[in-house]
Amino acid sequence: MSRVRVRFEPEGETTEGEAGALLLDLAAKAGLPVRSDCGGRGICRSCHVEVRSGRIRRLDQDGAEETVAAACEVLACQTAALTDLVVYVPPEVRLCPTGEEVAGYLGPGAAALLRPPARGFPLGQRLALRLPPPSFDDPTPDWERLARALREYLGEDRPLVCDLGLLRRLPDGLRVHDFALSATVVDEGDRHRVIDVGRVGGRAALGLAVDIGTTTVRVELVNLGTGQVLGGAAEFNAQTRYGEDVISRIIWSQEHAGGAEDLRRAVVGTINNLVERLLRQAEARRQQVVAVSVAGNATMICLLLRLPADTIRRAPHVPPVGQPPYLSAASLGLLAHPEAAVFCLPAINGYVGGDITGGILASDLAQRDELSLFIDVGTNGEVVLGNREWMICCSCSAGPAFEGMGIEAGLPARPGAIESLVYDRSSDTVQVRTVAGEPPVGLCGNGLVTALASLLEAQVIDRVGQLMSDYPSPRMRQVEGEWQFVLLWAEETGLGRDLVLRQSEIDNLIRAKAAVYAAVSTLLEVLGLTGEQIERLYLAGAFGSHLDVAAAMKIGLLPDLRPERVTVAGNTALMGAYLALLSSTARRQLREIAQATTYLDLSSVPRFMEEFVAALMLPHTELERFPSVVARGSSGVVS
Amino acid sequence: MSRVRVRFEPEGETTEGEAGALLLDLAAKAGLPVRSDCGGRGICRSCHVEVRSGRIRRLDQDGAEETVAAACEVLACQTAALTDLVVYVPPEVRLCPTGEEVAGYLGPGAAALLRPPARGFPLGQRLALRLPPPSFDDPTPDWERLARALREYLGEDRPLVCDLGLLRRLPDGLRVHDFALSATVVDEGDRHRVIDVGRVGGRAALGLAVDIGTTTVRVELVNLGTGQVLGGAAEFNAQTRYGEDVISRIIWSQEHAGGAEDLRRAVVGTINNLVERLLRQAEARRQQVVAVSVAGNATMICLLLRLPADTIRRAPHVPPVGQPPYLSAASLGLLAHPEAAVFCLPAINGYVGGDITGGILASDLAQRDELSLFIDVGTNGEVVLGNREWMICCSCSAGPAFEGMGIEAGLPARPGAIESLVYDRSSDTVQVRTVAGEPPVGLCGNGLVTALASLLEAQVIDRVGQLMSDYPSPRMRQVEGEWQFVLLWAEETGLGRDLVLRQSEIDNLIRAKAAVYAAVSTLLEVLGLTGEQIERLYLAGAFGSHLDVAAAMKIGLLPDLRPERVTVAGNTALMGAYLALLSSTARRQLREIAQATTYLDLSSVPRFMEEFVAALMLPHTELERFPSVVARGSSGVVS
Repeated sequence: MSRVRVRFEPEGETTEGEAGALLLDLAAKAGLPVRSDCGGRGICRSCHVEVRSGRIRRLDQDGAEETVAAACEVLACQTAALTDLVVYVPPEVRLCPTGEEVAGYLGPGAAALLRPPARGFPLGQRLALRLPPPSFDDPTPDWERLARALREYLGEDRPLVCDLGLLRRLPDGLRVHDFALSATVVDEGDRHRVIDVGRVGGRAALGLAVDIGTTTVRVELVNLGTGQVLGGAAEFNAQTRYGEDVISRIIWSQEHAGGAEDLRRAVVGTINNLVERLLRQAEARRQQVVAVSVAGNATMICLLLRLPADTIRRAPHVPPVGQPPYLSAASLGLLAHPEAAVFCLPAINGYVGGDITGGILASDLAQRDELSLFIDVGTNGEVVLGNREWMICCSCSAGPAFEGMGIEAGLPARPGAIESLVYDRSSDTVQVRTVAGEPPVGLCGNGLVTALASLLEAQVIDRVGQLMSDYPSPRMRQVEGEWQFVLLWAEETGLGRDLVLRQSEIDNLIRAKAAVYAAVSTLLEVLGLTGEQIERLYLAGAFGSHLDVAAAMKIGLLPDLRPERVTVAGNTALMGAYLALLSSTARRQLREIAQATTYLDLSSVPRFMEEFVAALMLPHTELERFPSVVARGSSGVVS
Repeated sequence: MSRVRVRFEPEGETTEGEAGALLLDLAAKAGLPVRSDCGGRGICRSCHVEVRSGRIRRLDQDGAEETVAAACEVLACQTAALTDLVVYVPPEVRLCPTGEEVAGYLGPGAAALLRPPARGFPLGQRLALRLPPPSFDDPTPDWERLARALREYLGEDRPLVCDLGLLRRLPDGLRVHDFALSATVVDEGDRHRVIDVGRVGGRAALGLAVDIGTTTVRVELVNLGTGQVLGGAAEFNAQTRYGEDVISRIIWSQEHAGGAEDLRRAVVGTINNLVERLLRQAEARRQQVVAVSVAGNATMICLLLRLPADTIRRAPHVPPVGQPPYLSAASLGLLAHPEAAVFCLPAINGYVGGDITGGILASDLAQRDELSLFIDVGTNGEVVLGNREWMICCSCSAGPAFEGMGIEAGLPARPGAIESLVYDRSSDTVQVRTVAGEPPVGLCGNGLVTALASLLEAQVIDRVGQLMSDYPSPRMRQVEGEWQFVLLWAEETGLGRDLVLRQSEIDNLIRAKAAVYAAVSTLLEVLGLTGEQIERLYLAGAFGSHLDVAAAMKIGLLPDLRPERVTVAGNTALMGAYLALLSSTARRQLREIAQATTYLDLSSVPRFMEEFVAALMLPHTELERFPSVVARGSSGVVS
């Protein structure tokens, strides 16, 4: 047998094989596995690639041989290489996400979950099948016929089920397509469920990764076959009108007639608005969305499912359920295929939810030997400390200040949001960087952190966060009895009005950072550890992936660590939901993480309140805890 | 240790044990296992018995000792025998049905499925539990807390699931009962589902065994804890108004707008009427009914589930599904707990349904070495031949004549139905036996068989079933151009009008018996077997358990076998449904039977039509096939 060399574009990866080898196999050998929804039977066309030069044999055309002159589209599973080839693999045909498409940090262990066979089964998938038609020799009933083919295809023994609706459509569904069809299958952990049948070669199966934050909801639309993120969008959680934090929403849900339903409708409305926008942008249809994974704290999940959340706010803070069952999109009112499988990431506790188990998974914390600290700053702050041997977590109420809620100039990281702000005392000027370079309209999380650090350094505020009323600039002014500092004048903004930071807003930010810092320091103290022993800090949450770590240490939000030990991990809750959408192994590991993590109730540790009070200064009452900040002299603290 | 003897009343069974042994264990040792819904923890009171004499120790009263003077109610799990005792076990406490309560024939293998541990899990059960309340040391969420206790209780690893509705009720459900509660659990084969929680000691969990015949629907109300049949009732299937047989109903469902829904409503209405009556008689509530098992041919199951049945009537006659999924009562509109589990007995084929797999299970055919023939005569006739090694089956359209449909004097076996009719030529008189001894109002299956045999013997009809118009009795008369024979004069009936058999009705009965006989003889011929090789014949179906076997052979409905080889098994479909209701082992075996049985399509065997035509005489064209009938000279054939 002669050897052939095939180069795959656009990567330019080259591999060798015997003449006559299938492009499908050669692509896998080159490390560029392509989709093959029908398992190489030439019926689904999901493996279409473009041969740009060389000589091929077409198995789907009675083995005809052909020398490619102009680029020629073929099925990788039906085409053999006879000579050296150049083959272009379009993005929609790739089996694995390239990684660049995915927002946020993924540890190498987590990234490995995206590649078969380690990943197992996506939460939903569409498979192309050709069944033998029934005969007297093979009179298997329709459903058992489909199940037999699927079981063989999936290569495993977990039960296959379907509901009455599918059974009612099945006989026609099989016959109208002459027993060649696509089946949409969702993975419910202990079994697979067939939710739809249709023609082969229809539109791709899509999934939603959803992060329900107390303040902000984020959704990504994902191609379940390739892992490609087709779009992402975020919006404030419409539940905020019923309360800023989880406690006030739980109380609303209990004390108002229909309150639980109001809250459910609010968050479902927010999600569905985002989904509608993403579907429109991707020119996709609701029926294509066959899987939804949802990360959120236990209260957010309760309110989405309209479960009574009262037990969460009372000691010992147990939620009604840790790992909710697989649910249908229709039962929750989500904009998707009515039978789409909804998986909620499991909670550790009433105060440490699936957003955190998702973060632990995405960051690889549970797989590493090194001692890691994981901090997720949202409306609640959650802290996890541990390694592959043990994990302990706690939660504190930070408030939504760093998400921009309760700060007039605050907003989520959308175009025009200020990501970074530096005030120069000598020139009395401000420099900003905004998302997408648009005219500034407000400050997102990192904008607030850098602003605070900059004002401290310029001695606009003192170490307790007090605005210096005698500061020599027209920016310092009193309005309606409250001091405020003008960050940007109206003409410098995209708003047409001054962007200011008020004294009460600064106080909010300081309380938020103090709560997070105190949670970390209490946890360390309880375990008899010091900050120096932390080998890795993952910072997740409201700040996205653009936190200025030095500024965060300057104001004492983060403990004083060497910057190279800090990974700004972005929205790890969403990354966890993304992993759960694509990998049954990820879904299993999430459950294991939830079970393996111990919860420490800070309210039962008297030390916590002392730590909180001590952290109400910038960076901290005890300066010796921030040696490098002091040494750099880059803070107002040295004056 | 001294020994004690305990006598259990009313059976009078006696057993010995060591002083200090629990009554619960002693009862089991005596072969009279009693219920213990909470697993012997003294919380459910399901094991209450009456001690009538002797000395006991009460574990639930701090180990107090007591000499019983008057009868004393105690919990068997909390009471130890210190001396010889007499203990009365009330019927509702017994774990196993006594057998007498169960209508119809059960083979010994099938009966063994009713006793633990062989039976596995009933389709639904109510379990009493006491959970540790949540604490900081044990902060397991509510659902996982319940699931942990249930898993331990059930002693196995299959997944436990619940739906959103239960999760919504759970937090209150646990706390209102202080974490001592009863959980209603249904068995879905690969997993258990919790469908309800409530207080301990509530009403018993009940189940329905349903046999949907094409012509007649039968329902039994069963105590799921004890297996006791609380009542049974039967009614014509209201679907008959849309067609007498399965083919005409399938056509109706297709050719009329909303036809499938009409048919579904009709049969659900029939079932619900029966259930309502049974619940009223038993003074039970709809919510108590937590499990439903349904036997029926594939078309009946399709119409109940509103599945398209069209493929059943077209070769190769495959139904949409062989084993339907576990469904909820609410999804089918059945009068029961909305989340009650509905299990449909699996079909072998479009023409051999769950009624037959149920019959094979109940009769033990699949467990025996001997070659057995199973005949179920209903609107369709189904025949199974085989043993533990192999099984083959076929189906023929007998028509509903033996169920009394299409015969003016015909009716199901209800009070007043004639079970047996003998006409005496010499005195020109008729002797009848009726169900419950009530005045005769019509003939049920065996009444028709005995009437036909008797008229043949008396030469009122000849061997082709022709009424002898010159027969010397006023009973023979012509009305509207058709000959008829008066079986009972108006004054002899409970109707006030003559009960007659018309020529066209006799022709119907003969076609029905010929179809059944031809199915049997064709099956034997295809396998190269003869009737003599049949070691056991089970006769099931319309005839209940009172078929006059000799009369059935006289008319050639059954092959000529030695009577001791014939078991009149009654409604084995209902027995199969009863077994499925009480035993997960039975449900598994039903699936195995459905998979292991081969189907022979009679329409593809040219011989069948010849056999049918030859069987249109009484007993048969070839008299040598009925040697004992001829030898007894008891038939019109010898004249």
